[in-house]
Amino acid sequence: MTIIQPRTAPGTLELLPRQQMVFQHMLDTIRRGFERFGFVPVETPVFELKDVLLTKSGGETEKQVYFVQSTGSLQQGHEADLALRFDLTVPLARYVAEHERELVFPFRRYQIQRVYRGERAQRGRFREFYQCDIDVIGKDKLDPAYDAELPAIIVRIFEELNVGEFTIHFSNRKILLGLLASFGIDDAEKQKLVLRDIDKLDKIGRPKVREALVDLGLKDIIADRLLSLITHTGSKEELLAALRAEKAEHPVFLQGLMELSQIVVSLKALGVAENRTRLNLAIARGLDYYTGTVYETFIDAHPEFGSVCSGGRYDDLAGLYTKSKLPGVGLSIGLTRLYDQLNMHNLLPQVPHNVQILITQLDPQLSSVYLSLGTELRHAGYNVENYLEPAKLDKQLKYADRAGIPLAIIIGENEQSKGNVLIKDLMAKSQLELPRTELINRLKNIIHHKD
Amino acid sequence: MTIIQPRTAPGTLELLPRQQMVFQHMLDTIRRGFERFGFVPVETPVFELKDVLLTKSGGETEKQVYFVQSTGSLQQGHEADLALRFDLTVPLARYVAEHERELVFPFRRYQIQRVYRGERAQRGRFREFYQCDIDVIGKDKLDPAYDAELPAIIVRIFEELNVGEFTIHFSNRKILLGLLASFGIDDAEKQKLVLRDIDKLDKIGRPKVREALVDLGLKDIIADRLLSLITHTGSKEELLAALRAEKAEHPVFLQGLMELSQIVVSLKALGVAENRTRLNLAIARGLDYYTGTVYETFIDAHPEFGSVCSGGRYDDLAGLYTKSKLPGVGLSIGLTRLYDQLNMHNLLPQVPHNVQILITQLDPQLSSVYLSLGTELRHAGYNVENYLEPAKLDKQLKYADRAGIPLAIIIGENEQSKGNVLIKDLMAKSQLELPRTELINRLKNIIHHKD
Repeated sequence: MTIIQPRTAPGTLELLPRQQMVFQHMLDTIRRGFERFGFVPVETPVFELKDVLLTKSGGETEKQVYFVQSTGSLQQGHEADLALRFDLTVPLARYVAEHERELVFPFRRYQIQRVYRGERAQRGRFREFYQCDIDVIGKDKLDPAYDAELPAIIVRIFEELNVGEFTIHFSNRKILLGLLASFGIDDAEKQKLVLRDIDKLDKIGRPKVREALVDLGLKDIIADRLLSLITHTGSKEELLAALRAEKAEHPVFLQGLMELSQIVVSLKALGVAENRTRLNLAIARGLDYYTGTVYETFIDAHPEFGSVCSGGRYDDLAGLYTKSKLPGVGLSIGLTRLYDQLNMHNLLPQVPHNVQILITQLDPQLSSVYLSLGTELRHAGYNVENYLEPAKLDKQLKYADRAGIPLAIIIGENEQSKGNVLIKDLMAKSQLELPRTELINRLKNIIHHKD
Repeated sequence: MTIIQPRTAPGTLELLPRQQMVFQHMLDTIRRGFERFGFVPVETPVFELKDVLLTKSGGETEKQVYFVQSTGSLQQGHEADLALRFDLTVPLARYVAEHERELVFPFRRYQIQRVYRGERAQRGRFREFYQCDIDVIGKDKLDPAYDAELPAIIVRIFEELNVGEFTIHFSNRKILLGLLASFGIDDAEKQKLVLRDIDKLDKIGRPKVREALVDLGLKDIIADRLLSLITHTGSKEELLAALRAEKAEHPVFLQGLMELSQIVVSLKALGVAENRTRLNLAIARGLDYYTGTVYETFIDAHPEFGSVCSGGRYDDLAGLYTKSKLPGVGLSIGLTRLYDQLNMHNLLPQVPHNVQILITQLDPQLSSVYLSLGTELRHAGYNVENYLEPAKLDKQLKYADRAGIPLAIIIGENEQSKGNVLIKDLMAKSQLELPRTELINRLKNIIHHKD
């Protein structure tokens, strides 16, 4: 028979079990953080009806959509009527609109699932990747206080993820838009172009951004004022003071200033360390979708990773699906890409093996002893594997060592007759013989329970 | 603007948050059970390359496959080269073959993911559903002891799921095949037809099965002997004794008998309660894929649910992808269908709300007090929501009640000046005022931590 070469589709990340444990630990940490702040879980189907999912015809994302079609539909010559979700925001909008009457608002949901984009295949680009999203949706209105809560959650999660120092940069699009309007630049298209140029600051540098702004028709003095604000490196309070000193009176600017000030106060009340967040007006985010606060998160030592958690405030989540006005604010962690980048830089957190103890099988006559010891240790809260294959002890210990299991328990005829067990620490290469009756008590000092 | 009606694709199960918590609790319980027995996690991409996934051309499952194609590929007139997985077994085979050198054997993995089948749309049939799979794969050989360990894991999980009494029925295909051979029926096709008829016992009853067996050419006396074995209602030991009394000497039968006997002994050593498992020779499982032990699990009070956890032993997992011989044994819980059936019969387990405490916002002047109390309670291990929208207290309490959050904390000017907090139990409709300094200690008696 011909052998089919086993391989995964390009653009997917598949992990070996030991790596999967690290990934799972990160997913669990994120979920626990979301739940700790009182968010509730949602999962949606991987595919949506095409006419529901693809509403903004011609957009960039639409070109990357994966269509789904059953064999039956294909044989009947139909067109595909399903498509894989490309983010978790459109499914959220559809979900909230569909279940509007059954939900309570403010609706605080988290969603951790994979999404799909037909990206060009290249290192670090994924066609299938996890997004970990958190959003608060209001009915008709949503207090700016929620804009401070979300970064507080992300701070807690990234601290627990233990992936190095990081900073959440935030801004409010109303500040720059209001400033521009107060400078007399109130054409929406032109404002958009200005914001797009400002967004490039990191990539092209201050002089080139200045040049671009002047090319757009901004006066030198105004371009300089904008640039001095967006490159401001002082504290949040200093930057807020600088903004107040602008004395701009455009209502959009004043609204943005009020929202920003409230975030700064709330972050303090939430106990978020000062250096974890930075008010940075250069964070403009290209997406028109955002209408107020915007966020980007950077690993301090690795700005080249780009933003690892982004989001913002939007005026209306689900206008395509409902007449209700549903403003919201959300943040999203792109976990697959983050994992991949951390992995490439050997920055992944150390995570203990799921399995804590391997009970070896030294003497097949004692197999009942091994099995009932396994049951006893599991009841005591440990994750335990019984090696059930007849094999030399050396091979079994090597198996545990290769798999990454830290402890092995050995009971031979000799130990059994004395009522003892032998614990082998495979990392420390040490061993310890003790009475079986003391085993569970002694294990408490050697390893921690799994839950 | 026209409103697009928000709706999910047919054949998908989408849950409201309170239901999702129950589903998530079931997923967590299953995963914890798998890990408790020392299994390691694997996740595979939702789609596989078409030529890798679809190898058994013309099979029933193949007709139900969903093909996946990106916009770009579609525009270029290509055929779809990706397809959604329809189970977790083919991806496991591909995974083990692909990563063979990096894995340790016996390879014990669990995988909890969704799979896709283009089923005809009808109540209770899902096109997207969760499978929770556990398998042990050996290299060249795999001891029958693993065939006892798997049902022990499932017993523990279903007990924890708390969905009523259940029984794992098991058999070994070698018994009936060996018996048939010893009766002189050794044509593989005919054996298959006999097993298929026996599999229908539940549906068509004993007389019709007898008729079918006689139609297949079995002598009356042999049909009756078979029927008395497959309808045997005695204990495992009594049925094993009845099998030994057959004195059949065909090696396949003897091998099956040895394997069954070993399972019975090992189940005892693993501490599995006698009534949780039943040796039932009528469990033949149509799939030729299985070569030894087979399992089906029934909720005692609801046999009409069908088997809620099935599986068995196979000789060779990945013959299509590797020349290595990889025997294995596995079991799979179809969770989406089980959830749906339990839900229809109001049998779902009671699961506490993820969020334990709502801190209301009575006086916006005290918002910093509310936020820092939230942080304090979260550090103490509670899942806490801060209500941040300015709203009447009544509305906030109604929100908590509708969402299903059990406790609300209220601090008004009055409580704040006394250094007190008010705890409102929304189920018991009772309340309690106590000094804030005592709050965390007193909460311990009211609710449990989340982890």
